[in-house]
Amino acid sequence: MIRQDYKEMLNAKSVIREMFTYATAKGQEIGYENVFDYSLGNPSVPAPKEFTDCMIELLQTEDPVKLHGYSPSLGIPSVRAAIADSLNRRFGMNYTAEHIFPTTGAAGAVAHAVRCITKPGDKVLTFAPFFPEYMHYINQSGAVLKVVPANTENFQINFEAFEEMLTEDVHAILINTPNNPSGAACSSATLTRLAEVLYAKQKEFGHDIFIISDEPYREIVFNGADAPYVSKFYDNTLSCYSFSKSLSLPGERIGYVAANPKCTDADLIAGMCGQISRGIGHNCPPSIIQLAVAKCIDMTSDLSVYETNMNLIYNELVRLGFEVVKPGGTFYIFPKALEEDAKAFCEKAKKYNLIFVPSDSFGVPGYFRMSYCIATEKVERSLVALREFVKNEYGRE
Amino acid sequence: MIRQDYKEMLNAKSVIREMFTYATAKGQEIGYENVFDYSLGNPSVPAPKEFTDCMIELLQTEDPVKLHGYSPSLGIPSVRAAIADSLNRRFGMNYTAEHIFPTTGAAGAVAHAVRCITKPGDKVLTFAPFFPEYMHYINQSGAVLKVVPANTENFQINFEAFEEMLTEDVHAILINTPNNPSGAACSSATLTRLAEVLYAKQKEFGHDIFIISDEPYREIVFNGADAPYVSKFYDNTLSCYSFSKSLSLPGERIGYVAANPKCTDADLIAGMCGQISRGIGHNCPPSIIQLAVAKCIDMTSDLSVYETNMNLIYNELVRLGFEVVKPGGTFYIFPKALEEDAKAFCEKAKKYNLIFVPSDSFGVPGYFRMSYCIATEKVERSLVALREFVKNEYGRE
Repeated sequence: MIRQDYKEMLNAKSVIREMFTYATAKGQEIGYENVFDYSLGNPSVPAPKEFTDCMIELLQTEDPVKLHGYSPSLGIPSVRAAIADSLNRRFGMNYTAEHIFPTTGAAGAVAHAVRCITKPGDKVLTFAPFFPEYMHYINQSGAVLKVVPANTENFQINFEAFEEMLTEDVHAILINTPNNPSGAACSSATLTRLAEVLYAKQKEFGHDIFIISDEPYREIVFNGADAPYVSKFYDNTLSCYSFSKSLSLPGERIGYVAANPKCTDADLIAGMCGQISRGIGHNCPPSIIQLAVAKCIDMTSDLSVYETNMNLIYNELVRLGFEVVKPGGTFYIFPKALEEDAKAFCEKAKKYNLIFVPSDSFGVPGYFRMSYCIATEKVERSLVALREFVKNEYGRE
Repeated sequence: MIRQDYKEMLNAKSVIREMFTYATAKGQEIGYENVFDYSLGNPSVPAPKEFTDCMIELLQTEDPVKLHGYSPSLGIPSVRAAIADSLNRRFGMNYTAEHIFPTTGAAGAVAHAVRCITKPGDKVLTFAPFFPEYMHYINQSGAVLKVVPANTENFQINFEAFEEMLTEDVHAILINTPNNPSGAACSSATLTRLAEVLYAKQKEFGHDIFIISDEPYREIVFNGADAPYVSKFYDNTLSCYSFSKSLSLPGERIGYVAANPKCTDADLIAGMCGQISRGIGHNCPPSIIQLAVAKCIDMTSDLSVYETNMNLIYNELVRLGFEVVKPGGTFYIFPKALEEDAKAFCEKAKKYNLIFVPSDSFGVPGYFRMSYCIATEKVERSLVALREFVKNEYGRE
């Protein structure tokens, strides 16, 4: 008698995973260097050398009993302080260590944040296009995720649809900026308007509405883009961060929740995360990774390759007549497919060894996602294949 | 509007933590070497040198993009295989990699296991004395933990009480052997009888009853103790393990669920754990720690100090006339207090800088727990304080 609802989930495959599995298999057949695999969002640049050096130094010099010992249940105090200081320096915030709760990546952060501020049955709104894992993060907590239709003009917020859906049973808004899959970063104007709407609705409903701000791509912002810090605009914000992309450490599982010092019960949020942790078996990110990341807190990997790739791809897509919004950050781009059925479009692309992800599971039909965290040399070769694909299948050149 | 039930939990302090906090503060006053701190179960022997060497080698020789990349969502295949092979070698099992799901320690393992095999409202039985965190692990999943009263004669199972409580709404039994806090290891006779009862009840009720076997102390077993492998006795067993104690890595958060190959839907359990993971933000233990532990899979820290300490303490307690069951493993001992009120007893002990944990939160009144993962030299000095305490406060010597 294993649990039926989880058992049934086994049949619902992730489209992203399916495409990646196809790309891997195809790679074994024709050489992976010949597969233009734009499926997975796995960083392609190494962690900074300082991170590696710091890990080795900790291993060589620290007492192993202390180094590998239990982290306090709310995280190592010096690590929490280092994160708070860095955010204060960079974004003019007033965090103290007590507002920071280290987590196993952004997934862990969102899992804690949503449990802090919703009870089962409460609604959470997010905006299409959205990261499909949000369905699991939110719905398994007992809250209910509802998706606001996309503003396909620029992938900012569709405020008309949003305000219509912002009913009294909504207790949280989950935003992701810069966005996976669109690459769009919420502008200051968007965030200002979002905050105005939420402040008014909090007053009208007489209860808090929190923003859960999922920001794993915060450091991957392109030249001139306007990518402001969400929590500056709205007090009831829980920022959810991951070092997966900024330090290229996705497997080491480290991130945090940062509670805006002015949010309701700001001083209790980290403690509540600690309580939630006991029930979901989370128990802090690994001690050694906490310590090493804290020493590299203001560093990033060399992220410039993502912008180089984006520009190459964006320009070619525009030249070929694709409808596409220029990404403000991330390593994703989200063009409109050349036919209504995005799955059919992506199937045809496979013939040219171009591996794209159709947009349906992101909550918008008719688009496709490219994750361009691959070598620039491969991007360049892929554009030849793209031209051929578009010419042969859709008569464009 | 942060969530009320988690908020209220903030006031319910852990007695273990309180005692540890007191010990730390006292240590700052009189020097920590003078505080006989038996509060926390934090390993006191270092991780094996091989673990440190292996970590450094991975950092120095592996491509960082691969090394720190995402683990597949069910864990790194070679790590799962190494764990399966080790269990097969040591316990004569027939696991394959597919039965193993790496987790962030035993807490993560139990959090996944309970969600696999119960739905909200199902009852889970455990046996007093029990690790107080079980209340959180089980109840926050939606299942309901019920505690079978202790068999204080030897801390094996109180079968009379157990069979009475084993009603049709019970879907899982959570056992912990060797046990925190008693140190008792379930004997073969106990496990044989437990399996007989459960097989009969499964048939009677027409549904599975799983054992969730929490085994973080499996490698800390004392000379001559009978500490058999639970899953050998009962097919519907999910073994939950942690490397925290065996390799002295509690902060690095690594363990696993191992589904008995003969359990119901054995081939689906790991996959279901993967689905559960998406909702609780778990996403695998850190990649580098998975890889390093797999290379040290059959090693342990030098655990002999725990047995040395246990013998010193046990002999002295017996000499002083305490009622105490000799531990079969772990680094805990669980004697009866010298007065009915264990809290009062532990308060008085503080005067002698002896830090014990009263037993109430373990589900048995009138006992106290000593965690003897401290230096043997300190144990020896503490026995002088113990003699003085018992003589002055209770007139025994």
